[in-house]
Amino acid sequence: MDFYSKFVKRREKLNSLLCVGIDPDITKLPPSLEKFPDKLYVFSKEIVDATAEYAVAYKPNIAFFEAFGSKGIEQFEKLISHIKTNHPEIPIVADAKRGDLDNTARQYAKFFFKELGVDSLTLSPYMGSDTIKPFIEDDSRMVFLLCLTSNPDSAELQQKTFSETGRTLYREVAALSEKFPAKNVGLVVGATHPKELLEIRKAHPDRIFLIPGYGAQGASLEEVISVCGKNSLVNSSRSIIFSSSGTDFAEKAGKAAASITEQMRKLLA
Amino acid sequence: MDFYSKFVKRREKLNSLLCVGIDPDITKLPPSLEKFPDKLYVFSKEIVDATAEYAVAYKPNIAFFEAFGSKGIEQFEKLISHIKTNHPEIPIVADAKRGDLDNTARQYAKFFFKELGVDSLTLSPYMGSDTIKPFIEDDSRMVFLLCLTSNPDSAELQQKTFSETGRTLYREVAALSEKFPAKNVGLVVGATHPKELLEIRKAHPDRIFLIPGYGAQGASLEEVISVCGKNSLVNSSRSIIFSSSGTDFAEKAGKAAASITEQMRKLLA
Repeated sequence: MDFYSKFVKRREKLNSLLCVGIDPDITKLPPSLEKFPDKLYVFSKEIVDATAEYAVAYKPNIAFFEAFGSKGIEQFEKLISHIKTNHPEIPIVADAKRGDLDNTARQYAKFFFKELGVDSLTLSPYMGSDTIKPFIEDDSRMVFLLCLTSNPDSAELQQKTFSETGRTLYREVAALSEKFPAKNVGLVVGATHPKELLEIRKAHPDRIFLIPGYGAQGASLEEVISVCGKNSLVNSSRSIIFSSSGTDFAEKAGKAAASITEQMRKLLA
Repeated sequence: MDFYSKFVKRREKLNSLLCVGIDPDITKLPPSLEKFPDKLYVFSKEIVDATAEYAVAYKPNIAFFEAFGSKGIEQFEKLISHIKTNHPEIPIVADAKRGDLDNTARQYAKFFFKELGVDSLTLSPYMGSDTIKPFIEDDSRMVFLLCLTSNPDSAELQQKTFSETGRTLYREVAALSEKFPAKNVGLVVGATHPKELLEIRKAHPDRIFLIPGYGAQGASLEEVISVCGKNSLVNSSRSIIFSSSGTDFAEKAGKAAASITEQMRKLLA
């Protein structure tokens, strides 16, 4: 099934927009996992199984695995295979922020979509459309373009305005996404920018937004959902996966996911 | 030794700017290597050994290895280890075009600089300075920011002009690089844009440029060198590594590298 259909089906079933971000920072893993040589996998798998009834999507970030080279990527492969085997109804967005020339882009597409078989991938849009196309040649696939990111220095380039179009760089990327069907190209928009979130949503009502960074300094869950609506995946990573560093880490992650889901259901009602 | 010193030493010794790009596209490998399970490694290693007397730097692109997942990354690790052991004087630029938030960026930095131990890495600048800093905390390291890339659609975003500064996006990235020492942050500028190459070099005389795409539709080697000068690495991939698909592929690659080196020496004289 294509990413878009999987997403809609899952969203409607759970009446939620929760994307569970899997960022297994080795320095934050529960000490009880120290004994496992493949602890990135063990941790992530436990988190997945404990949150599966609440996850509309999973977003594992490959950087935390790549940090350990081929041994880390092997654990990433095992994790993706675990999700696909045990929770095939949950779409996977690999957070990788890749981007390269046509034939090189095709190599990354081969890994993520053919070898691993994830449903979606995050991409950097800097190089332009011809570096995006190779990823969606199989049109069941979805990519999310970095649009307005949640880090402080995102303003440096993304929030400057082009004189040719009167649009900021992030709006230009959003406009570029409209060259492609909404079911193939979505946007990453950080909840740390509530005003801009509204602006982008108004201009692009049909794009699926992948929204990290709600809470803390950003918009509240209530704001994000009222502004962005249902064509959205609202990501939560640390507040779910690092709920406890005890042996109850998975159970607590499940409870955290349940609690966010409950809030989302109220807001979506 | 830091990247910068290694580069200068190598450049002066060889009187050349040749960066050998290692892009082992599996569909283009010599049929004689079909029997090797680790043929990406075998091919790349042979190319390295045959071109080592001419390479000012190597630029292996990880995408061609990542295409095969952990098994591919394992071959990438073996290749880097081979270069470091047998040709320790030649700096390595890993072409990966990564880029992510602070703590996530640190994971990529850990892999490339600590686990693999390459000297330099290509990065996408889209997210801004705070996503670049983690890579150069160890100030012996170098990153090359995508500035003006060689693909046709690079114009879509990179060649638009910001009204706040009057600079194009690629010039804005070049300006951003000046926040950091020249020995830590260089620029990727495609030779497919000869006019802009001159413009960027005039504004940034001290930055090291990594220049792909000369010949074919781009500027000639002569133009590139006369415009960009010695603070440059001029990349050649396919015209070296795929000089022959016979069993003499390595020998022919060595001859191609020798011939480019000879041209460069004349132009630099």
